[in-house]
Amino acid sequence: MDMFMNDPEEKRHFVDILMSFYNYQMDSAKDIAIMERDFFNMSEKSKQFLMASPMNISKMRSTLKQIAREWSTEGKEEREASFGPIKKMLQQYFPNPVKENGDRVKVLFPGCGLGRLVFDAASMGFYAQGNEFSYHMLITSGFILNEMEKANQFQLRPYILNFCNQYKEEDPFKVYNFPDVFPGDEIKPEWQNLSMVAGDFREVYSGQKGEWDCIVTCFFIDTANNIIEKGGVWINLGPLQYHYHQQPDQLSIELSYEEILLAAEKIGFSIENKYEVDSSYVGCQKNMNQLIYKCQGFAGVKKDDKFV
Amino acid sequence: MDMFMNDPEEKRHFVDILMSFYNYQMDSAKDIAIMERDFFNMSEKSKQFLMASPMNISKMRSTLKQIAREWSTEGKEEREASFGPIKKMLQQYFPNPVKENGDRVKVLFPGCGLGRLVFDAASMGFYAQGNEFSYHMLITSGFILNEMEKANQFQLRPYILNFCNQYKEEDPFKVYNFPDVFPGDEIKPEWQNLSMVAGDFREVYSGQKGEWDCIVTCFFIDTANNIIEKGGVWINLGPLQYHYHQQPDQLSIELSYEEILLAAEKIGFSIENKYEVDSSYVGCQKNMNQLIYKCQGFAGVKKDDKFV
Repeated sequence: MDMFMNDPEEKRHFVDILMSFYNYQMDSAKDIAIMERDFFNMSEKSKQFLMASPMNISKMRSTLKQIAREWSTEGKEEREASFGPIKKMLQQYFPNPVKENGDRVKVLFPGCGLGRLVFDAASMGFYAQGNEFSYHMLITSGFILNEMEKANQFQLRPYILNFCNQYKEEDPFKVYNFPDVFPGDEIKPEWQNLSMVAGDFREVYSGQKGEWDCIVTCFFIDTANNIIEKGGVWINLGPLQYHYHQQPDQLSIELSYEEILLAAEKIGFSIENKYEVDSSYVGCQKNMNQLIYKCQGFAGVKKDDKFV
Repeated sequence: MDMFMNDPEEKRHFVDILMSFYNYQMDSAKDIAIMERDFFNMSEKSKQFLMASPMNISKMRSTLKQIAREWSTEGKEEREASFGPIKKMLQQYFPNPVKENGDRVKVLFPGCGLGRLVFDAASMGFYAQGNEFSYHMLITSGFILNEMEKANQFQLRPYILNFCNQYKEEDPFKVYNFPDVFPGDEIKPEWQNLSMVAGDFREVYSGQKGEWDCIVTCFFIDTANNIIEKGGVWINLGPLQYHYHQQPDQLSIELSYEEILLAAEKIGFSIENKYEVDSSYVGCQKNMNQLIYKCQGFAGVKKDDKFV
């Protein structure tokens, strides 16, 4: 080797080769930068074939966080803060998920997101049906409920793009494993007690008066209650984070919690077992920015059908 | 009166007059609606003479909340969550606000908002100077510091436009009284120890190397530290809510807290007395949506001027 190094020309050549290894990271970063430049310089018309709308891209990012909330091992604390009290309430009002006539108690979950609470209720033995309007949620819950092979099969880093309010450099890279349970271990297809229905809640269910024993609304308060008959139970938990607040082109009637309860009583519900529970929602666990919802929980028992 | 009422024509006339009183609210609301319609139908060109930019209008709303935070009787709990520990730290490092040579200890507050912490430090006897870039803040702090006549002179309802996550119908209408203290009672003009300087912190102070005994950054971490000489103290409290995060046209270097501390040590600070404190920021007290910052506090004592 020393022999070669005595030749200045040869030495330069050899060092250059060493540097080509050493500089690979910077060189490849340059390549990526050029690709990015070319991508951004594509005509708007061409880009349309590649890009989703910013709104849908943003919802896609939320969906990744929603997976962490509902189906990851690491998201258990957050989801149980709201799913826990609801499941307790379900057991309190329906100690036996099977009725005397052999039918399962029918529980409906409008706006069920990725369906974890529906799945949990089905595991408990209820006939559980989720309803969801969002394609993002439907595609993803279908994937998780039907396509998994084992627990903790996938790894997700849903907060990798947020470098604000981080304690340590590595915190944004935190891994969330999902699914925390293999769905097939908990629910057998032959039970036929878990289903998901796509569509707008009011459109799909407005004709089903009296078909449901219980309706569970979790972070989904603005719902039509007249599908529950006398004796039926409405279990609710969530804040009042009105989605259409201050959107000029949307109607948004923003009742306070007190007014919600008054309205529920006016349409025939007797409100019982009120409680408040603190919970984040798709929150990054280890972050200096912590949004906490003071979730309001209650059960409403339908006494009669006045004003419906 | 009965006589008139026997005449149906007269009765109709009389009832109509009663109704004109009764319906005044609806009638005036109609008038306002018409004015609003006309306003919104003005040409864009005409509107430009009347309207501020949406960004400045939004900042104006934040300024009202900032008044509640810094200067209202009702905002005391929130502001003391961060101002309290900082004032304690000031006393710890400078037990006597007057030096042996008779000069007051000079404390600088970059990004001081509405100047309440500057005012508190001046009340404690320090030479306190606030620095602020925002016209919204400067106009408002000037108003509060110079134009008040008595404590609790004004009433403010800064959350009146938010009907989300409210417990009771009346909660958005909660009144905040300001100022909680009459500034003239706490600080005498002849002390000449309270001042406010407008402008960008780095531009205004970059030439003042060694002029300050202490620099206090509260919810303002990204600051130039080289205006403190050996022995000087940097007191910090706040999260890392980078203002320019994900704004495509702005440079935003987003260090984690661990990296901030490393960088501070690299430019010659010895980091002491680290602590964490939970605090909201211009948060509505009674609301189901509670954003809590896990604020990081520390004191940095300048050992030497390496790497500056």
